[in-house]
Amino acid sequence: MAEEKTIAFVLYPGCTILDLVGPLQVLSMFSAMRPEFRVTVVAEGLETCGTDTPLQVGADRTFADVPAPDVVVVPGGGTPTLRAAIHEPLLAYLRGVAPGADLVASVCTGSLILGAAGLLEGRRATTHWAVLDVLAEFGATPVGERWVQDGPVLTAAGVSAGIDMALHLVEELAGAEVARTVQFGIEYDPEPPHGGLEWSEAPRALYATVAEQWLQEGLGTHPLAERLAARLNGSAG
Amino acid sequence: MAEEKTIAFVLYPGCTILDLVGPLQVLSMFSAMRPEFRVTVVAEGLETCGTDTPLQVGADRTFADVPAPDVVVVPGGGTPTLRAAIHEPLLAYLRGVAPGADLVASVCTGSLILGAAGLLEGRRATTHWAVLDVLAEFGATPVGERWVQDGPVLTAAGVSAGIDMALHLVEELAGAEVARTVQFGIEYDPEPPHGGLEWSEAPRALYATVAEQWLQEGLGTHPLAERLAARLNGSAG
Repeated sequence: MAEEKTIAFVLYPGCTILDLVGPLQVLSMFSAMRPEFRVTVVAEGLETCGTDTPLQVGADRTFADVPAPDVVVVPGGGTPTLRAAIHEPLLAYLRGVAPGADLVASVCTGSLILGAAGLLEGRRATTHWAVLDVLAEFGATPVGERWVQDGPVLTAAGVSAGIDMALHLVEELAGAEVARTVQFGIEYDPEPPHGGLEWSEAPRALYATVAEQWLQEGLGTHPLAERLAARLNGSAG
Repeated sequence: MAEEKTIAFVLYPGCTILDLVGPLQVLSMFSAMRPEFRVTVVAEGLETCGTDTPLQVGADRTFADVPAPDVVVVPGGGTPTLRAAIHEPLLAYLRGVAPGADLVASVCTGSLILGAAGLLEGRRATTHWAVLDVLAEFGATPVGERWVQDGPVLTAAGVSAGIDMALHLVEELAGAEVARTVQFGIEYDPEPPHGGLEWSEAPRALYATVAEQWLQEGLGTHPLAERLAARLNGSAG
């Protein structure tokens, strides 16, 4: 029998739910094909919590239930993600599991949580385009790519990038053929109505204002607030 | 003040959660920019239910709370979606709200639920590629496109197609500029590791077997089981 591997998705209140569900769907479909890869959603507690949409969500296991996952995936979000980045029980869980994990991954601003846990030091990493420069504050080298793998650290760009990252991860775990079968399963043949993003038209000023608000509301008077805000002004320029 | 519009996402136990969350994320971000569009997740009851992943989910309002939404979106899935397609309280809700709604939408096999509710009669429509031919059994003309709008009925192809459909919907509701801003918000600049789907390589036999299982397990001895299975053999060929 193949060795069992546990892939744990970290849930916290108010996260951007597509950050979590994009890769969760991909990995769950993979797990249905290859049951030795067990997928779980972990949180500090099992009570239902909110998201950045009206959907209410809950984990199936607690941090304490899953002390040694092989892969950990951390979703991002706005204000609540910055709150999570200074929430000790979450940081303690990530610091505790990272040394034994094959891979620590994030989607969108989930990488800011990894950074706050000290896991991005010396790593190439990415995040949502609007806050990319902030990663440098955690000792990381910010990279504007769809996903970035540096050793055991895999980070994805904003929100929907988690789907692309997860297909890459399935390929790493089980090969391109399996990843292709999952891609057919989720019929991932993207057709944005007007094509991909035209970066020269990015609404940078708007998102800089939004990101500043995330930092202020999420970090309050925490020392990290000022340090990240200073980097943000770099991003906005 | 602009007229208020309610966009209701229908939740039922066991649905494919990315079908729901893809468009829900897009429309929720839109709602943050244009609060006159209110987004809600509706279900028969407010208790937490399972999905096709380990994530537990719950609605914020019941069917009874939202008797007249302007837009309704129904997600798909496997076996549980076929169960939902013969679940009278859900069908009654859809039949009740459809006449007053501007738009009734579905993602993936959610269109089979619309079909079972009698809402696809005479319409061009789509669904997950593996069950496309089944739509004819509901009086629809199956169309293999990413999303299909026919009057007040908007259907999307499998799972991830709901994101593309939702961006189209935002553009219909508020224009291309707003849709573009949302697309930057979710950083939707897709980059599947090996590109889009190569349809000549679709694992048709595998998914035909899976789809047959959905029908058998989901519909049991219901008369619809045999009728849809006959169409499915067409899809598999």
